[in-house]
Amino acid sequence: MRLLLVNPNTSGFVTDRVAAAARAVARPGTEIVPVNGRFGARIIGTRTELAVAQHAMVDVLARHAGDCDAVVLAVSYDTALHAAREMLDVPVVGITEAALLTACLLGTRIGVIVYGRRTLPLYQELVASHGFTGRIAGWRVLETTAVYGDGDQAAADAAAIAAANDLVERDFAEVVVLTGAVMAGVPPRLQPSVPVPLLEGVGLAVRQAEMLVDLKPVKPRCGGYAPLPVRELVDVDPVLAARFGGP
Amino acid sequence: MRLLLVNPNTSGFVTDRVAAAARAVARPGTEIVPVNGRFGARIIGTRTELAVAQHAMVDVLARHAGDCDAVVLAVSYDTALHAAREMLDVPVVGITEAALLTACLLGTRIGVIVYGRRTLPLYQELVASHGFTGRIAGWRVLETTAVYGDGDQAAADAAAIAAANDLVERDFAEVVVLTGAVMAGVPPRLQPSVPVPLLEGVGLAVRQAEMLVDLKPVKPRCGGYAPLPVRELVDVDPVLAARFGGP
Amino acid sequence: MRLLLVNPNTSGFVTDRVAAAARAVARPGTEIVPVNGRFGARIIGTRTELAVAQHAMVDVLARHAGDCDAVVLAVSYDTALHAAREMLDVPVVGITEAALLTACLLGTRIGVIVYGRRTLPLYQELVASHGFTGRIAGWRVLETTAVYGDGDQAAADAAAIAAANDLVERDFAEVVVLTGAVMAGVPPRLQPSVPVPLLEGVGLAVRQAEMLVDLKPVKPRCGGYAPLPVRELVDVDPVLAARFGGP
Amino acid sequence: MRLLLVNPNTSGFVTDRVAAAARAVARPGTEIVPVNGRFGARIIGTRTELAVAQHAMVDVLARHAGDCDAVVLAVSYDTALHAAREMLDVPVVGITEAALLTACLLGTRIGVIVYGRRTLPLYQELVASHGFTGRIAGWRVLETTAVYGDGDQAAADAAAIAAANDLVERDFAEVVVLTGAVMAGVPPRLQPSVPVPLLEGVGLAVRQAEMLVDLKPVKPRCGGYAPLPVRELVDVDPVLAARFGGP
Amino acid sequence: MRLLLVNPNTSGFVTDRVAAAARAVARPGTEIVPVNGRFGARIIGTRTELAVAQHAMVDVLARHAGDCDAVVLAVSYDTALHAAREMLDVPVVGITEAALLTACLLGTRIGVIVYGRRTLPLYQELVASHGFTGRIAGWRVLETTAVYGDGDQAAADAAAIAAANDLVERDFAEVVVLTGAVMAGVPPRLQPSVPVPLLEGVGLAVRQAEMLVDLKPVKPRCGGYAPLPVRELVDVDPVLAARFGGP
Amino acid sequence: MRLLLVNPNTSGFVTDRVAAAARAVARPGTEIVPVNGRFGARIIGTRTELAVAQHAMVDVLARHAGDCDAVVLAVSYDTALHAAREMLDVPVVGITEAALLTACLLGTRIGVIVYGRRTLPLYQELVASHGFTGRIAGWRVLETTAVYGDGDQAAADAAAIAAANDLVERDFAEVVVLTGAVMAGVPPRLQPSVPVPLLEGVGLAVRQAEMLVDLKPVKPRCGGYAPLPVRELVDVDPVLAARFGGP
Repeated sequence: MRLLLVNPNTSGFVTDRVAAAARAVARPGTEIVPVNGRFGARIIGTRTELAVAQHAMVDVLARHAGDCDAVVLAVSYDTALHAAREMLDVPVVGITEAALLTACLLGTRIGVIVYGRRTLPLYQELVASHGFTGRIAGWRVLETTAVYGDGDQAAADAAAIAAANDLVERDFAEVVVLTGAVMAGVPPRLQPSVPVPLLEGVGLAVRQAEMLVDLKPVKPRCGGYAPLPVRELVDVDPVLAARFGGP
Repeated sequence: MRLLLVNPNTSGFVTDRVAAAARAVARPGTEIVPVNGRFGARIIGTRTELAVAQHAMVDVLARHAGDCDAVVLAVSYDTALHAAREMLDVPVVGITEAALLTACLLGTRIGVIVYGRRTLPLYQELVASHGFTGRIAGWRVLETTAVYGDGDQAAADAAAIAAANDLVERDFAEVVVLTGAVMAGVPPRLQPSVPVPLLEGVGLAVRQAEMLVDLKPVKPRCGGYAPLPVRELVDVDPVLAARFGGP
Repeated sequence: MRLLLVNPNTSGFVTDRVAAAARAVARPGTEIVPVNGRFGARIIGTRTELAVAQHAMVDVLARHAGDCDAVVLAVSYDTALHAAREMLDVPVVGITEAALLTACLLGTRIGVIVYGRRTLPLYQELVASHGFTGRIAGWRVLETTAVYGDGDQAAADAAAIAAANDLVERDFAEVVVLTGAVMAGVPPRLQPSVPVPLLEGVGLAVRQAEMLVDLKPVKPRCGGYAPLPVRELVDVDPVLAARFGGP
Repeated sequence: MRLLLVNPNTSGFVTDRVAAAARAVARPGTEIVPVNGRFGARIIGTRTELAVAQHAMVDVLARHAGDCDAVVLAVSYDTALHAAREMLDVPVVGITEAALLTACLLGTRIGVIVYGRRTLPLYQELVASHGFTGRIAGWRVLETTAVYGDGDQAAADAAAIAAANDLVERDFAEVVVLTGAVMAGVPPRLQPSVPVPLLEGVGLAVRQAEMLVDLKPVKPRCGGYAPLPVRELVDVDPVLAARFGGP
Repeated sequence: MRLLLVNPNTSGFVTDRVAAAARAVARPGTEIVPVNGRFGARIIGTRTELAVAQHAMVDVLARHAGDCDAVVLAVSYDTALHAAREMLDVPVVGITEAALLTACLLGTRIGVIVYGRRTLPLYQELVASHGFTGRIAGWRVLETTAVYGDGDQAAADAAAIAAANDLVERDFAEVVVLTGAVMAGVPPRLQPSVPVPLLEGVGLAVRQAEMLVDLKPVKPRCGGYAPLPVRELVDVDPVLAARFGGP
Repeated sequence: MRLLLVNPNTSGFVTDRVAAAARAVARPGTEIVPVNGRFGARIIGTRTELAVAQHAMVDVLARHAGDCDAVVLAVSYDTALHAAREMLDVPVVGITEAALLTACLLGTRIGVIVYGRRTLPLYQELVASHGFTGRIAGWRVLETTAVYGDGDQAAADAAAIAAANDLVERDFAEVVVLTGAVMAGVPPRLQPSVPVPLLEGVGLAVRQAEMLVDLKPVKPRCGGYAPLPVRELVDVDPVLAARFGGP
């Protein structure tokens, strides 16, 4: 199967890391097709960039999802998740969504680590919108931005380990989620120092997407994910406009 | 004061009606500056169009908010509300947010009328994201699209009146909110047939925006509405990119 | 317009301060009419005094609201708010209610500072009854009673600033509310030392009341705010009894 | 033990019925001491009367609770419940509170029947303030006021039975609560026609109060129920003022 | 009346203590009939032992509840509470349930002390299943297992007192519940050092059970506590199988 | 991989159907190992049988899970789910849990169909314990027991289709879950008549279990799923006792 992996960032750095991690966990027959957004932030870190990324996401999905069997939104804000499910006939999985759902299978209460305090409300709103607020044991905010860099990540690793253990000790978390697409592939490196399962979303979203492709769920014929009606969109990419049956 | 009234739709029909209604309730010294989105849906009615409108909203705000004292988001999904508050130094009010907040001052439990069943989950998610789910008495979904037309609206009016009265009778609503920017100016026409206050958001958002301009709240220096950091955005409108201090 | 400002306390000290603050923010055409309760606590600080104040509030409203265009309940427990809305045909706004509603327009999560730990549950119940519990980032309790005095308030100011900053730093509050009618006029003095908007309710309730007078909402004909039926009340002030059409 | 039974209504009709029902279930050694409010509504039915009754309740408690071992608030709004617990050193139980707590011991989900639609929000707020909203299966509102009269109650009984059965059938209630002090003694008459336990609060509050007298809980020394501080109250009954150690 | 007191543990140590405490608070005419589980854990401390205890509880209830007037589940997980209410025609009360319900009568917000951090989620799930999560002020976890021993309990007492006071000071608890059947009889010893009511469940469950016996609630004829239908159970104790009308 | 499929019922009828459905969706390399409970109900339908089944589940898991790579609890009450995760080192998935989690990936609001009104509260409690109450659009209760038989299922199919469509039409469900292990394999037969995805849990639990085997999550070293401590269990199956390191 072909699995589209969309990172709406306009820089390829995170995408490369994400794609490598996705390929490391995908089944033998799964082809990972990574793609970036065509416009917007290098790496989304503000609400304004996120608003642009909503458009960038449906823009890139209109262009690339056509010949894929499923889509993974490789951005930890699950950007445009509902829109993607509406526009497309194939399964769509967000990485934070996948991490939270899988965490529910591994522990009763979930600790969450986010990077950058200004993004905390974004993640809290996301968790609430998925209906998982009641499952959250606690939050930790790390400012260590080295995690996004290419160099030595020992300090970033140590900070994440400390935060995870603090969630376990003080908030009684039974499973810990690392947010951020850039954390793809990281958990196995830190797991030996954390006494409960440590998860990130990219690998889990790939697995859930494969699962959904096997399931072949029907495309809803009504409700919020019903097929797009015929409508005219103005001054957007023609490929996106064509999704609405436009000229 | 200058009050920017942004409707991200690319058709001017609703905007004209909204601007007229806004002017009818604005204080004498308030200048209403209506503006439409530059790209995207004629009238937003799907999640995919809404994703595009998030971008269209910050795009138009970057262009027009500079010389205004406050902004009203004249779209009933309160599209890009948080991004707008982050990007701008002036107050921003969403119309559904304004309707809900004002409804709290007029009744303990709020009935909500939405147009088009595929938009129901969007409004339910919006109300939940504002934290008002516990105040909602009930929902009614009307499919009467005549309300968006220019012709005789007697049937649309009758349907709204029936839905409002049903919310009062069966769900014990004490105040009723009509969603949709197109409902601007409508409540006074229907109020005589509804025994509890009937609200729409455009007029209320104008009033709340004027109130906030008088209040002169400080721009947050930290948190999710802190000023935009210096970042590089790619292939977006230069005016928007400049908001991030880009070249 | 005439705006009745009711403080159910039987001492005028807080009322004077509140009235001055209200006049400082009211529009030019707004006349502030301050009035105190006729019986009960000097300054409400216990649940028992609050029970008495419920009566004192409707007693004073029956006497004074008749020729006013709106009412502000200048007591931070929003005492008898629902009763006032039932009894009167004009808009009624509570100061804590006004602070919370306005806070929602300025930040996603609200920090609250209360004075005196025995009042904490009263405020928590009040916030819950308004349906805002989900918006609260955290609470801080200050015992500094100097704030109620007339002397030097430097220590009280420093404590409030410290509490507000702690709410921002540790609980990620994006807006902070100071409870207590006595805090009227205080925020501008503290705001330079707090990085997010700092609010108190008196000024905001005045603004919301003015807004509602402009809106002219219909008096509900059914539900919990429907007009008072004809009933006989015994041994209450005749003016109050007359509100029920009694002889 | 002496058990004070306070009905803040100023008419003795309901009180007589309530006292009889209380005596019918009280233990042999329990003396029921019924007392009415000294001022306010004949029978509370509006929010304004309820505000007066808050004062009437603490007024009467100050006068009569002194030589009693416990107090039952024989008014279905649990009026001034928290104030009574603060003012007094002996246990206090509200009748709706008692009905809800006992209902939890008899069924997982509770149906509630209220009389008069304008009181519905009062009961919903009361249930929410007790934290029981999640246990409620459904509500039914009856307008049959015959239940308050002295004549034939066959129609009122039939309406209550129908409502209870409807709660069982459609909302899957496993226990049903009849609100209103006037329902004291009624459940045994209706129970044969209802397939799940049918409760009212007066008898249950008497039993819970007896239980608490046996338990002899300590008077809290801090928190919201801590002893009243020394304060001056103005123009209230001297007996009430004396509770605050005033002159 | 005969009151069956079931501790599903297979060791009699806790049962003896529990029975003594129950007898100390039971009314003169109440006979306490203690009984242990026939199989399973000495003292339940894990989820797996709890699963076994669910069976052990209904097994022992089938054998012993027949000639009793009510049942107290003397195990702090309220094990098989709903099943017991379904199987039996007499009232059933769980000790943690009883402690929480009674706590609601004594304070607005409840602090809870649990022993052993691996049991914390069990108690949190239990409190949530009863619908009391909103009443909880905070949790404290003590590892002091001396409390289960026979020796000097000064250290255990000191730890509980410290935890209770910390709940009062930092979380503003107004009443504190000690979990664990082994805490039966302990509160009076610690109460002088704690400024708010300190509760444990065994004594309270005895009192609530006596109250329900007096009330004589009807056995539900439908819903989740309806009488057992005729069914065949395989390889369980014949007395239990006979409850289902089996051969 | 070997996947243990445990149905705690003591009749093989449902198990056969479940095993067949599991094999139909399992990957080629997955061996399905079905096993029944050794004691208890033929088919669980009451809370009392469910209490027995908790023991039967851990009993059978102790015997059979040893050489398996993961476990599916093929009983729609997710019986002993947490105990199984505690006792075992391999992943465990409940079928209703799997259906709910997967439903979240396919629709924003979930409709649920249950069979037999006395089981409704069991499912509502289960959904609440998983934290999914906020995602539920509505419930439908069917009494058609033909679904459990071997004969013609046309009537049962028609009832399920009608209930699913009613959930879509009136409650705006976007995905519908059929509860009951016996529904394994049924959705494809009904899907053409239902406009939104129709799910059952057995197939989905198999897929989620395979996913978790691939993931190889670490066994928690602390918290509620930490390895069993050494303890003595009395009169349980020696294989189960041995799990606790007993003699």
